[in-house]
Amino acid sequence: MANNITDKKEIVVGVDIGGTNTVFGIVDFNNDILLEDSFKTIPENGADNFFERLAIIIKEAYGKFESKHVLSGIGVAAPGANYMSGIIESPANLKWGDVNFTEIMRKYFQVPVALINDANAAALGEQEFGMAKGVKNFIVITMGTGLGTGIVVNGQLLYGENGLAGEIGHTIVKKGGRQCNCGRRGCLETYVSANGIRRTVFNFLGHFTEQSELRQISFENVTSKLICELALQNDPIALKAFHFTGKILGRALSNVVANFDPKVIILAGGLAEANELLFEPAIKYFESTLLNVYKGKVQILKSNLQDGRSAVLGATSFVREILCKEILQVI
Amino acid sequence: MANNITDKKEIVVGVDIGGTNTVFGIVDFNNDILLEDSFKTIPENGADNFFERLAIIIKEAYGKFESKHVLSGIGVAAPGANYMSGIIESPANLKWGDVNFTEIMRKYFQVPVALINDANAAALGEQEFGMAKGVKNFIVITMGTGLGTGIVVNGQLLYGENGLAGEIGHTIVKKGGRQCNCGRRGCLETYVSANGIRRTVFNFLGHFTEQSELRQISFENVTSKLICELALQNDPIALKAFHFTGKILGRALSNVVANFDPKVIILAGGLAEANELLFEPAIKYFESTLLNVYKGKVQILKSNLQDGRSAVLGATSFVREILCKEILQVI
Repeated sequence: MANNITDKKEIVVGVDIGGTNTVFGIVDFNNDILLEDSFKTIPENGADNFFERLAIIIKEAYGKFESKHVLSGIGVAAPGANYMSGIIESPANLKWGDVNFTEIMRKYFQVPVALINDANAAALGEQEFGMAKGVKNFIVITMGTGLGTGIVVNGQLLYGENGLAGEIGHTIVKKGGRQCNCGRRGCLETYVSANGIRRTVFNFLGHFTEQSELRQISFENVTSKLICELALQNDPIALKAFHFTGKILGRALSNVVANFDPKVIILAGGLAEANELLFEPAIKYFESTLLNVYKGKVQILKSNLQDGRSAVLGATSFVREILCKEILQVI
Repeated sequence: MANNITDKKEIVVGVDIGGTNTVFGIVDFNNDILLEDSFKTIPENGADNFFERLAIIIKEAYGKFESKHVLSGIGVAAPGANYMSGIIESPANLKWGDVNFTEIMRKYFQVPVALINDANAAALGEQEFGMAKGVKNFIVITMGTGLGTGIVVNGQLLYGENGLAGEIGHTIVKKGGRQCNCGRRGCLETYVSANGIRRTVFNFLGHFTEQSELRQISFENVTSKLICELALQNDPIALKAFHFTGKILGRALSNVVANFDPKVIILAGGLAEANELLFEPAIKYFESTLLNVYKGKVQILKSNLQDGRSAVLGATSFVREILCKEILQVI
């Protein structure tokens, strides 16, 4: 480490690599957020291209603070990221294969870096900055391009034996169901995610005969945000798609509760922005499907952190925690 | 407490209340098992009747050791048991409604008692005496009348927020599927349990035309043990029933892994006694359904403790642990 920790204030960078956008932020050790920004992930250009751009963007962003601050570490949240191995393991929605994060980052940075699963980072963000303050058993469901899960039991992140716990987006909810990027069929995230609701819309355009503005738009051009806007204008296909998505989510969460018995489930990510369109059916089917002993004991809440922010903040918490524990991966 | 802890050796009683049989044992503080026995639960006679009989049987069993031993505590494992509340909460397969265990036991015993979920007790038994020695992340699946789950993460039992974690037997694996004693439909235990395979056999007797000795026997008289015996004699319906049961179990376990990322899954209880009849299809469908990142990382093993013994031993571990921690519930 070449850092001179003189009178300069320490800062850390948090990054959340999403299937569509990558969000990053610079946070100091008082938890003040000095900068937040995002850029397109463009996963189809490959991991090397992505990390090259990431390095340029982080260096440029850090440059603005360099005179008065010193960079202590970088925390990166990514789908499929395994903090134990330092590998981003075959992220389904990025299609990068295994990415040796530690090795790639070593090319560009001289400071400690830490890799964390994006949904785990979101859970840390909720625990420190969001809806899960003081809650010991909770689950964060991030619904972006895919569906990620961060699980906290007894106040601690659940990693599992190999750092791979919490792939609830890849529990199979429908045998022989929709094709998933993971190579199997019927995974929860093929239904409940920004991409999942888009697939539902196109199924429904085939299945039902109602008029819909969605009939004018190609698959590639439909976004979950647009489906939400049209549902708010009472578009029948968009409304049905949200009802269907919420129903599958609610039922899946009732099974999740039978595994973990959490106090709170926090919904985050782009799809959660649909608010009641998603929450109303989700809570209805959740409560009606729940095993009796759990009824009335589990709250489903919306994250109060801006989309992507919980994972960025969680990534900064994570790298600072590691810095504090001095179990750093010095590169 | 009226116990005179003089030169007498301390012993504890462990009890495992099953839907069909109740197993109990007396264990000393060297982990030596002094006595093991069982009796019929007869749940239809009600909880009061059961605990009255349990008290008589325990006192009679303890009587044999009274001259040289002193009873320090009783650990009771039961389905739906909640150690946090001291209530046996509406156990689906006993149909007793909520049972105030602490209050009932107070009528009969003057020593500390501890209540633990039967599958959690089985997990403690496996951890101390069985296949999970030294394993930090494992799951025990007990397949008796119902299907129970004991989950250990980071070496500790997972209780969840209300002491109700690990009801995987009541995760719904088939929407609108078989009617369950919990009042819902399609729960895993309606397929994968001693009772579940009996139901499968009768479905299959209706669905298929093959000859089978099972066509001579009434529903009430068919047991999972008999189905196993007939399968070993190549009875086609019995063989199909085991294949189907293993398939559903294997697929369900692949979803369980996506939640917890365990190192080992231990199958225990009467149905596990079918050995390869169950394990071969279970492991085949487990491995083929598993998300890629988990492949080759999770072992499915058979408990090496005699049926019912892991929960009895776990219940004794649990009450001794509580005695040691001096957080006892003195009654």
